[in-house]
Amino acid sequence: MDMKELYNNMGGEIKEFEKFEGDLHKGYKFTYEKRLSEVDVQFFGLVSGDFNPVHFDEKIASGTRFGGRIVHGMLTTSLVSAALARLPGLVIILETYFRYTAPVRIGDVVKVEGVVKEADMAKKQYKIDITCSVEDKTVIQGWTNILIW
Amino acid sequence: MDMKELYNNMGGEIKEFEKFEGDLHKGYKFTYEKRLSEVDVQFFGLVSGDFNPVHFDEKIASGTRFGGRIVHGMLTTSLVSAALARLPGLVIILETYFRYTAPVRIGDVVKVEGVVKEADMAKKQYKIDITCSVEDKTVIQGWTNILIW
Repeated sequence: MDMKELYNNMGGEIKEFEKFEGDLHKGYKFTYEKRLSEVDVQFFGLVSGDFNPVHFDEKIASGTRFGGRIVHGMLTTSLVSAALARLPGLVIILETYFRYTAPVRIGDVVKVEGVVKEADMAKKQYKIDITCSVEDKTVIQGWTNILIW
Repeated sequence: MDMKELYNNMGGEIKEFEKFEGDLHKGYKFTYEKRLSEVDVQFFGLVSGDFNPVHFDEKIASGTRFGGRIVHGMLTTSLVSAALARLPGLVIILETYFRYTAPVRIGDVVKVEGVVKEADMAKKQYKIDITCSVEDKTVIQGWTNILIW
Protein backbone atom coordinates (compact mmCIF):
# COMPACT_ATOMS: atom_id res chain seq x y z
CA MET A 1 0.00 0.00 0.00
CA ASP A 2 1.42 3.39 -0.85
CA MET A 3 1.68 6.15 1.71
CA LYS A 4 -1.11 8.29 0.27
CA GLU A 5 -3.55 5.37 0.43
CA LEU A 6 -2.43 4.53 3.96
CA TYR A 7 -2.95 8.14 5.08
CA ASN A 8 -6.35 8.30 3.41
CA ASN A 9 -7.40 5.00 5.03
CA MET A 10 -6.42 6.49 8.40
CA GLY A 11 -8.85 9.37 7.82
CA GLY A 12 -6.47 11.97 6.40
CA GLU A 13 -7.70 14.40 3.78
CA ILE A 14 -5.69 14.13 0.55
CA LYS A 15 -5.22 17.52 -1.14
CA GLU A 16 -4.39 17.57 -4.84
CA PHE A 17 -1.40 19.78 -5.59
CA GLU A 18 -2.82 22.42 -7.92
CA LYS A 19 -1.09 25.73 -8.59
CA PHE A 20 -3.04 28.99 -8.18
CA GLU A 21 -3.58 31.03 -11.34
CA GLY A 22 -2.33 34.42 -12.46
CA ASP A 23 0.83 36.41 -11.74
CA LEU A 24 1.94 37.50 -8.28
CA HIS A 25 1.48 41.20 -7.62
CA LYS A 26 0.67 43.54 -4.74
CA GLY A 27 -2.92 42.80 -3.71
CA TYR A 28 -2.87 39.19 -5.02
CA LYS A 29 -5.12 37.05 -2.79
CA PHE A 30 -5.36 33.30 -2.29
CA THR A 31 -7.02 30.77 -0.01
CA TYR A 32 -6.37 27.14 0.88
CA GLU A 33 -8.15 24.88 3.32
CA LYS A 34 -7.70 21.44 4.80
CA ARG A 35 -9.18 19.36 7.58
CA LEU A 36 -6.76 18.46 10.38
CA SER A 37 -7.60 14.98 11.68
CA GLU A 38 -6.35 12.57 14.31
CA VAL A 39 -3.91 11.04 11.81
CA ASP A 40 -2.36 14.48 11.21
CA VAL A 41 -1.70 15.00 14.92
CA GLN A 42 -0.19 11.49 15.13
CA PHE A 43 2.01 11.99 12.02
CA PHE A 44 3.12 15.46 13.19
CA GLY A 45 4.02 14.02 16.59
CA LEU A 46 6.18 11.37 14.95
CA VAL A 47 8.00 13.58 12.44
CA SER A 48 8.76 16.29 15.02
CA GLY A 49 8.95 14.27 18.22
CA ASP A 50 6.45 16.71 19.78
CA PHE A 51 4.30 14.57 22.09
CA ASN A 52 3.15 17.50 24.24
CA PRO A 53 0.26 16.10 26.35
CA VAL A 54 -1.91 19.07 25.32
CA HIS A 55 -2.05 17.35 21.90
CA PHE A 56 -2.06 13.70 22.99
CA ASP A 57 -3.43 13.29 26.51
CA GLU A 58 -7.16 14.03 26.77
CA LYS A 59 -7.09 13.81 30.57
CA ILE A 60 -4.36 16.44 30.96
CA ALA A 61 -5.67 18.63 28.11
CA SER A 62 -9.22 18.64 29.49
CA GLY A 63 -7.86 20.08 32.75
CA THR A 64 -6.51 23.17 30.92
CA ARG A 65 -8.24 26.33 29.71
CA PHE A 66 -8.53 24.59 26.29
CA GLY A 67 -10.88 22.01 27.80
CA GLY A 68 -9.50 19.22 25.61
CA ARG A 69 -6.81 18.16 23.14
CA ILE A 70 -5.79 20.67 20.49
CA VAL A 71 -3.83 20.48 17.24
CA HIS A 72 -0.12 21.48 17.30
CA GLY A 73 0.16 25.18 16.34
CA MET A 74 2.91 24.30 13.91
CA LEU A 75 0.75 21.62 12.32
CA THR A 76 -1.78 24.36 11.58
CA THR A 77 0.93 26.62 10.12
CA SER A 78 2.12 23.74 7.92
CA LEU A 79 -1.01 24.58 5.90
CA VAL A 80 0.52 28.01 5.23
CA SER A 81 3.51 26.21 3.68
CA ALA A 82 1.10 24.26 1.48
CA ALA A 83 -0.78 27.42 0.47
CA LEU A 84 2.44 29.25 -0.43
CA ALA A 85 3.67 26.26 -2.46
CA ARG A 86 0.59 26.66 -4.67
CA LEU A 87 1.56 30.20 -5.73
CA PRO A 88 2.78 30.63 -9.33
CA GLY A 89 6.48 29.72 -9.73
CA LEU A 90 8.85 27.66 -7.59
CA VAL A 91 8.31 29.00 -4.07
CA ILE A 92 11.08 29.31 -1.46
CA ILE A 93 10.12 30.48 2.05
CA LEU A 94 12.59 33.00 3.53
CA GLU A 95 10.90 34.19 6.73
CA THR A 96 7.75 33.54 8.76
CA TYR A 97 6.06 35.22 11.71
CA PHE A 98 2.99 33.73 13.35
CA ARG A 99 0.89 34.63 16.37
CA TYR A 100 -1.31 31.84 17.72
CA THR A 101 -4.55 33.45 18.87
CA ALA A 102 -6.98 30.57 19.41
CA PRO A 103 -6.85 26.77 19.64
CA VAL A 104 -7.60 24.43 16.72
CA ARG A 105 -9.48 21.22 17.54
CA ILE A 106 -8.91 17.81 16.00
CA GLY A 107 -11.29 17.57 13.04
CA ASP A 108 -11.40 21.31 12.39
CA VAL A 109 -11.15 22.60 8.82
CA VAL A 110 -8.56 25.39 8.77
CA LYS A 111 -8.72 28.08 6.10
CA VAL A 112 -5.52 29.92 5.16
CA GLU A 113 -5.97 33.35 3.56
CA GLY A 114 -3.05 35.26 2.09
CA VAL A 115 -2.64 38.67 0.53
CA VAL A 116 0.53 40.04 -1.07
CA LYS A 117 1.39 43.30 0.73
CA GLU A 118 4.76 44.08 -0.88
CA ALA A 119 6.14 42.91 -4.21
CA ASP A 120 9.79 43.39 -5.21
CA MET A 121 9.53 42.31 -8.84
CA ALA A 122 13.29 42.71 -9.47
CA LYS A 123 14.32 40.41 -6.61
CA LYS A 124 11.17 38.29 -7.00
CA GLN A 125 10.54 38.63 -3.26
CA TYR A 126 7.06 39.02 -1.82
CA LYS A 127 5.78 39.87 1.64
CA ILE A 128 2.46 38.19 2.33
CA ASP A 129 0.04 38.71 5.20
CA ILE A 130 -1.49 35.48 6.50
CA THR A 131 -4.66 34.72 8.43
CA CYS A 132 -5.76 31.22 9.45
CA SER A 133 -9.30 30.68 10.61
CA VAL A 134 -11.75 27.99 11.67
CA GLU A 135 -15.26 28.94 10.61
CA ASP A 136 -15.32 32.65 11.48
CA LYS A 137 -12.69 32.54 14.21
CA THR A 138 -9.12 33.70 13.54
CA VAL A 139 -6.68 31.16 14.98
CA ILE A 140 -3.37 32.47 13.58
CA GLN A 141 -2.18 35.80 12.22
CA GLY A 142 1.18 36.58 10.70
CA TRP A 143 3.22 37.20 7.60
CA THR A 144 5.86 35.57 5.45
CA ASN A 145 8.56 36.58 3.00
CA ILE A 146 9.00 34.34 0.00
CA LEU A 147 11.25 34.15 -3.03
CA ILE A 148 10.12 32.88 -6.42
CA TRP A 149 12.59 30.94 -8.59
CA MET B 1 0.72 -2.46 13.57
CA ASP B 2 0.67 0.75 15.55
CA MET B 3 1.68 4.05 14.01
CA LYS B 4 4.98 4.37 15.86
CA GLU B 5 6.09 0.95 14.64
CA LEU B 6 4.98 1.79 11.10
CA TYR B 7 6.93 5.06 11.15
CA ASN B 8 10.00 3.35 12.55
CA ASN B 9 9.80 0.61 9.89
CA MET B 10 9.71 3.36 7.25
CA GLY B 11 13.02 4.71 8.56
CA GLY B 12 11.74 7.44 10.88
CA GLU B 13 13.63 8.22 14.06
CA ILE B 14 11.48 7.74 17.16
CA LYS B 15 12.24 10.32 19.86
CA GLU B 16 11.25 9.51 23.41
CA PHE B 17 9.31 12.34 25.04
CA GLU B 18 11.47 13.32 28.00
CA LYS B 19 11.13 16.65 29.78
CA PHE B 20 14.21 18.84 30.30
CA GLU B 21 15.29 19.37 33.89
CA GLY B 22 15.39 22.44 36.12
CA ASP B 23 13.31 25.61 36.28
CA LEU B 24 12.91 28.09 33.45
CA HIS B 25 14.80 31.34 33.97
CA LYS B 26 16.65 33.96 31.95
CA GLY B 27 19.73 32.27 30.51
CA TYR B 28 18.22 28.73 30.59
CA LYS B 29 19.60 26.73 27.64
CA PHE B 30 18.40 23.56 25.96
CA THR B 31 19.09 21.45 22.89
CA TYR B 32 17.16 18.84 20.93
CA GLU B 33 18.07 16.99 17.78
CA LYS B 34 16.43 14.65 15.32
CA ARG B 35 17.18 13.15 11.94
CA LEU B 36 14.78 14.20 9.17
CA SER B 37 14.30 11.29 6.78
CA GLU B 38 12.38 10.52 3.60
CA VAL B 39 9.39 9.34 5.65
CA ASP B 40 9.25 12.72 7.42
CA VAL B 41 9.09 14.59 4.11
CA GLN B 42 6.36 12.22 2.90
CA PHE B 43 4.32 12.52 6.13
CA PHE B 44 4.72 16.32 6.21
CA GLY B 45 3.55 16.51 2.58
CA LEU B 46 0.44 14.52 3.44
CA VAL B 47 -0.55 16.34 6.64
CA SER B 48 -0.03 19.80 5.10
CA GLY B 49 -0.78 19.14 1.44
CA ASP B 50 2.57 20.79 0.58
CA PHE B 51 3.89 18.83 -2.41
CA ASN B 52 6.21 21.61 -3.58
CA PRO B 53 8.47 19.97 -6.22
CA VAL B 54 11.55 21.37 -4.46
CA HIS B 55 10.78 18.75 -1.78
CA PHE B 56 9.45 15.91 -3.95
CA ASP B 57 10.78 16.15 -7.52
CA GLU B 58 14.52 15.42 -7.77
CA LYS B 59 14.62 16.46 -11.42
CA ILE B 60 13.15 19.92 -10.78
CA ALA B 61 15.01 20.40 -7.47
CA SER B 62 18.38 19.49 -9.00
CA GLY B 63 17.89 22.29 -11.53
CA THR B 64 17.72 24.90 -8.75
CA ARG B 65 20.47 26.59 -6.70
CA PHE B 66 19.83 23.90 -4.04
CA GLY B 67 21.08 21.22 -6.45
CA GLY B 68 18.62 18.64 -5.15
CA ARG B 69 15.56 17.98 -2.99
CA ILE B 70 15.41 19.71 0.37
CA VAL B 71 13.32 19.27 3.51
CA HIS B 72 10.30 21.58 4.01
CA GLY B 73 11.42 24.59 6.12
CA MET B 74 8.36 24.12 8.32
CA LEU B 75 9.22 20.46 8.83
CA THR B 76 12.56 21.62 10.23
CA THR B 77 10.84 24.16 12.51
CA SER B 78 8.50 21.42 13.76
CA LEU B 79 11.56 20.29 15.73
CA VAL B 80 11.43 23.64 17.55
CA SER B 81 7.89 22.76 18.64
CA ALA B 82 9.21 19.42 19.95
CA ALA B 83 12.10 21.11 21.78
CA LEU B 84 9.77 23.66 23.42
CA ALA B 85 7.35 20.90 24.48
CA ARG B 86 10.22 19.35 26.50
CA LEU B 87 10.61 22.45 28.68
CA PRO B 88 9.43 22.13 32.30
CA GLY B 89 5.65 22.65 32.64
CA LEU B 90 2.81 22.48 30.12
CA VAL B 91 4.05 24.56 27.18
CA ILE B 92 1.78 26.73 25.00
CA ILE B 93 3.36 28.48 21.98
CA LEU B 94 2.16 32.08 21.55
CA GLU B 95 4.38 33.48 18.79
CA THR B 96 7.16 32.34 16.46
CA TYR B 97 9.56 34.10 14.10
CA PHE B 98 11.92 32.13 11.85
CA ARG B 99 14.39 33.07 9.14
CA TYR B 100 15.44 30.23 6.84
CA THR B 101 19.10 30.76 6.05
CA ALA B 102 20.26 27.49 4.46
CA PRO B 103 18.68 24.32 3.05
CA VAL B 104 18.29 21.08 5.01
CA ARG B 105 18.83 17.82 3.09
CA ILE B 106 16.87 14.60 3.50
CA GLY B 107 18.77 12.52 6.08
CA ASP B 108 20.30 15.53 7.87
CA VAL B 109 20.32 15.60 11.67
CA VAL B 110 19.01 18.99 12.78
CA LYS B 111 20.02 20.40 16.16
CA VAL B 112 17.74 22.95 17.83
CA GLU B 113 19.37 25.22 20.41
CA GLY B 114 17.31 27.54 22.58
CA VAL B 115 18.17 30.14 25.19
CA VAL B 116 15.66 32.04 27.34
CA LYS B 117 16.25 35.77 26.74
CA GLU B 118 13.34 37.24 28.72
CA ALA B 119 11.40 35.70 31.60
CA ASP B 120 8.16 37.20 32.95
CA MET B 121 7.74 35.01 36.02
CA ALA B 122 4.40 36.61 36.98
CA LYS B 123 2.74 35.95 33.61
CA LYS B 124 4.81 32.75 33.10
CA GLN B 125 5.76 34.00 29.64
CA TYR B 126 9.22 33.44 28.17
CA LYS B 127 10.94 34.81 25.08
CA ILE B 128 13.39 32.28 23.67
CA ASP B 129 16.02 32.71 20.97
CA ILE B 130 16.27 29.75 18.60
CA THR B 131 19.02 28.47 16.32
CA CYS B 132 18.73 25.35 14.18
CA SER B 133 21.87 23.88 12.67
CA VAL B 134 23.15 20.93 10.65
CA GLU B 135 26.67 20.06 11.72
CA ASP B 136 28.22 23.54 12.08
CA LYS B 137 25.93 25.33 9.63
CA THR B 138 23.06 27.50 10.87
CA VAL B 139 19.93 26.70 8.87
CA ILE B 140 17.29 28.65 10.82
CA GLN B 141 17.40 31.57 13.25
CA GLY B 142 14.51 33.05 15.15
CA TRP B 143 12.66 33.40 18.40
CA THR B 144 9.46 32.32 20.11
CA ASN B 145 7.21 33.45 22.93
CA ILE B 146 5.74 30.73 25.08
CA LEU B 147 3.39 30.47 28.02
CA ILE B 148 3.73 27.85 30.76
CA TRP B 149 0.57 26.46 32.36
